[in-house]
Amino acid sequence: MQVKVFITPRKGILDPQGRVVEQSLRTLGFKDVTDVKVGKYIVLNVAAPSVAAAREETKRMCERLLANPNIEDFSFEVEGE
Amino acid sequence: MQVKVFITPRKGILDPQGRVVEQSLRTLGFKDVTDVKVGKYIVLNVAAPSVAAAREETKRMCERLLANPNIEDFSFEVEGE
Repeated sequence: MQVKVFITPRKGILDPQGRVVEQSLRTLGFKDVTDVKVGKYIVLNVAAPSVAAAREETKRMCERLLANPNIEDFSFEVEGE
Repeated sequence: MQVKVFITPRKGILDPQGRVVEQSLRTLGFKDVTDVKVGKYIVLNVAAPSVAAAREETKRMCERLLANPNIEDFSFEVEGE
């Protein structure tokens, strides 16, 4: 079952990569772009017996490895939901 | 208008970060996880007059800065689609 995980810097936390990307976009002429945040997009397959099991496993993977709970938020989508 | 951009290593291109994450997940006991890919998730606001204009602008941003056309694929969603 394919899972897509979205990890973003938490609101209020410094996001230097986002600032650099925003500045670069403006330099390239994209003047109407604001609030750029750069996070991670992780796609994986999990051999879970049900969507509910896949969701539970993905949540644990995020909490234990994929996201930094101090500075990042995560959300995810499981195929077939 | 909020835009979400998903950038992934192209199929067949080496994804060392994905391999490390997969190995780490297995070490942590998530044995049924395969095909881990690590890409970027970029959220931004664009002051475009329409969804079509936002899509066109986002495509150009991906082509000119956000994605590396040699090794990455991109897709995106515009709020209100």
